[in-house]
Order: sequence, then structure tokens, then C-alpha cells
Amino acid sequence: MTKRDIFEQVKKKQSYLCVGLDTDINKIPSDLANYEDPVFEFNKRIIDATIDVCVSYKLNLAFYETLGPTGLISLQKTIEYIPENIFLIADAKRGDIGNTSEMYAKEFFEYYNFDAVTLSPYMGKDSVEPYLKFGNKWIILLALTSNSGSYDFQMLKTENGEMYEEVLRKSKAWGTTDQIMYVVGATQTSFLQNVRIIVPEHFLLIPGVGAQGGNLEEVTRYGINDSVGLLVNVSRSIIYASDAMDFDNAARKKALEIKSEMEILLDKYH
Amino acid sequence: MTKRDIFEQVKKKQSYLCVGLDTDINKIPSDLANYEDPVFEFNKRIIDATIDVCVSYKLNLAFYETLGPTGLISLQKTIEYIPENIFLIADAKRGDIGNTSEMYAKEFFEYYNFDAVTLSPYMGKDSVEPYLKFGNKWIILLALTSNSGSYDFQMLKTENGEMYEEVLRKSKAWGTTDQIMYVVGATQTSFLQNVRIIVPEHFLLIPGVGAQGGNLEEVTRYGINDSVGLLVNVSRSIIYASDAMDFDNAARKKALEIKSEMEILLDKYH
Repeated sequence: MTKRDIFEQVKKKQSYLCVGLDTDINKIPSDLANYEDPVFEFNKRIIDATIDVCVSYKLNLAFYETLGPTGLISLQKTIEYIPENIFLIADAKRGDIGNTSEMYAKEFFEYYNFDAVTLSPYMGKDSVEPYLKFGNKWIILLALTSNSGSYDFQMLKTENGEMYEEVLRKSKAWGTTDQIMYVVGATQTSFLQNVRIIVPEHFLLIPGVGAQGGNLEEVTRYGINDSVGLLVNVSRSIIYASDAMDFDNAARKKALEIKSEMEILLDKYH
Repeated sequence: MTKRDIFEQVKKKQSYLCVGLDTDINKIPSDLANYEDPVFEFNKRIIDATIDVCVSYKLNLAFYETLGPTGLISLQKTIEYIPENIFLIADAKRGDIGNTSEMYAKEFFEYYNFDAVTLSPYMGKDSVEPYLKFGNKWIILLALTSNSGSYDFQMLKTENGEMYEEVLRKSKAWGTTDQIMYVVGATQTSFLQNVRIIVPEHFLLIPGVGAQGGNLEEVTRYGINDSVGLLVNVSRSIIYASDAMDFDNAARKKALEIKSEMEILLDKYH
């Protein structure tokens, strides 16, 4: 999908919600254990319940990998279940030398057919280049994350501002705004205006609304651009809105709540 | 394994070689295609040919993940084939928020039973803490990598020196020298003395000797400490020493060559 394709979906659905499928087998209703593939069954119901109110799903690889090869089969089935007009993100946070990055790029873009993969910038330009060779695919670079550890290195002062600013400034020259997005945590809204000075045109993937405490109104006010330019990810507070077998209805209710707020915010700020 | 256990193995084998099993299905001899699991068959023969001359194997997750769930089964079989007195590294370069890191820690330390996992420091302290809760397990943090992109961010000047120095200085307080190692590329020997000033007691995992051009003598001269403190990884120039069915003999020959050089260097510098 291009930047314009994503924007069109956002306008059509009046939503910039990304639902995070961080599906933890120990947190899903125990009645699902009767199904052949409980993780896929859970995901399928969450997708059915939310697909008309979100534009993207983000699958956090850790939650699938931790189950071994079986977990990757659930991942694969989930991907196949999601239609093409949804922007599909592999939240993998990889970052390695060139010949290894090639393998990861093949994994996420060819084997699993994700639209985008999250990457750590620590190893620099040649660690992300192999991903940029794939047409119509995206990398989402970590800039300023939502956790407390973001202060350890991302906020360090360098000669030209803070570390995350250096990441934004250097990396935006590595590809186009149809290839690169950035992760900026919703808990970092005081820095969003600054992020927008450096990367006014890029889409941002914003985690941290919900369980982590980020504020949707502030994120939108400071982060929105001409193409909306925001994908706000919510994981736990949607998918675990209920721990009983009505989890899909509860997830829908929560997702609709967020989508309704987004509709109002789009009206106000876009 | 403890730091002392690794040191004992190094003394016993007179080797600090780590063999990197970056097994690419497109680079292994085509005759292996007749086996049920060509990747595992290749690894098994490499392990048989090198186990008495190395102290560690490093499995690069990308090369297994890129094959989908099947690749993870080959990974699992390889791990089960490697005896306990070998230090087993998951080269995964993960780095995520706490609840996700917990999942990765379970994957690498419980599901696959690796001794160590490589991590990116970009997301800071709380992104590595979940791994440190596992007894007798290690994290190996990226400090200064062997690729050209290491100059993009790792070498940036901060208020207290360069970025990689900040990573070393801060993170060494997060755990003990029985829990934390660092990645320092063999192409960065001019910085090794400096690394040793900041982390004199830690083990270092040194990639980049061989295909990437690093120099073993220099790495040893500047990197060695009382416990030797070095695991030098060689991947491609060992496992692809021959592209024919004598690949295991060729790998052994190359590994023996390196081990012999290490024996001399241990005698000279330790």
C-alpha cells in the first residue's frame, strides 16, 4: 500500500486505529482451549469484531514466536485471514547487518506478506537498506518509544540535538515517505511537535494509547498532518477488554469507542 | 553457564571460537536436498566437524525464521543436538517494551533453551530487564557493531563520549558480568582498548573476523582479559569453506586453522 492508499482507508473508515494482536495464550479465555488453534481462533474473532473500525493490524512477533513453530503457524493463518486493504504490520523490531537483514526482509515481506516491519535504527543505514529494495513495502523505524527506557539512550544529547532527532534526520534520507514510517510513543506527546518539525510528511505509528496511558487527543493535535499521518495502535485495552467468551463484543465496543473519538478528532483537526 | 564455566571451556579447548550457524538454504550443497531436513543435516555435520575446536555456537535467527515454521523446527533440532557444555547464542537482536521482552525471553531461554540472546540497547533498561530475571542466562548487548552503519548512530558524540560508550557505561550497571556480554565488531579494533577501559571484566562477542575482514591477532591483543573474555564468532568462512559435499571437512580445516591461531595467541597474550 502507498501512503495515499492508507490515507484513503483512513478517510473512508474515519479511523486511524491499528489494533495490536499481542495475543498471549495465557490471557485468552480458557474455553478457547477446545479449538484446534486457540490463538488463531481468538485473532479471527477479534478481527471479525474490529475490521470495519480499524485500518491496520499490528502483529507482535514475540507473542507468536514464544510458542515455537506452532505459534508461527497461528501467525500465518491470521495473516491469511486479513484482507488486502488492511495495512499489516510485523512488530518485530529487528536490526542486523546486511546479509541478515535480507533474510528478515524475505521473512516478513515474502514469506508472511506483511506490508511493514518495525526496525531498530541502532545499526544504521546498511542494516535497513535490504528492506527498502522491496516495492510497495514499508519499514517503521523506532524513533522515540513509549517506555521509560526511552530516556536511557534515545534522549541523549548529541552535537545536533537528541539521539532520536538524529535518527529522524539521518534516516529520512534513506527512502521516501512511501517507504518509511516512525514509531513515536503516545506517552511522548510533548515531543511530537518537534518530531513533526523534522518529519512533517511521514506517517507515524503511535503505540502507548490505552494500557500505557497515552492521550489520543494530544497525539492527534500534535501529530496530525495533511494525510492524517497517524496510525494509533491499541493492543491490550481492546483485545483483553473482557476475559470471558464475550471478548469479541467487548473488543468491538472498545474499538468503536476509540474510532468514535477519532472521528471527532479528524473533524476537529483535519 | 557462568563466566567461569566459559573460561574453563576456553582453557580446556584452547579456543575462544564461536561458530556461527547462519545456514542459508540457498548456499548449502544441493545434494542435501535429498534429506528430510537439509538445514538440520547441514548443521549436524558442521557441528560434528567443529565441536572439539569451538566453545560456542551462534544461531542467527533470521536464517531460520525466513523459512517459516519449518525453519524453526530445524533450529530446534539443531539446539537439541548441541551438548550442554557449549555456550549457545541466539543471535536475535531483539529489543522491545517489558511485556514483549518477557515473551522473547521465554522464547529464547525456555522454549529453545539458549544460554544467551543478542539484544539492541536502543529501548533502554526496561527493555532488557525481563531477560535478566532468568538465572544462569545471558544477554549480549550491541555496543559497537562491525558494519559501516555503526558510524550512523553508535559513534555519535554525546555529552559523555560516544553513543556506544554511553551504552557500555549505563548498561553495565544493569546486571553482573555473569549476565551481560557486549557485541564489539572485529572491524573496530581501534576502539577495543577504549571498550576495555569501560568494561574490563565483561566477555565480548566479536563478530566480523573472516568474511567481514576483522583481524584475530588485533582483536586478541586489545580485547583479552583475565578470563580471556572473548568469544570470536566466525560464520561464513567456516560453514561455506566448500560448496561441495566435503563442506564438513573444509569447515573443520578452517575452524582448526583459527583454533591453532587462537592457541598461539592465548600463549602470547594470556
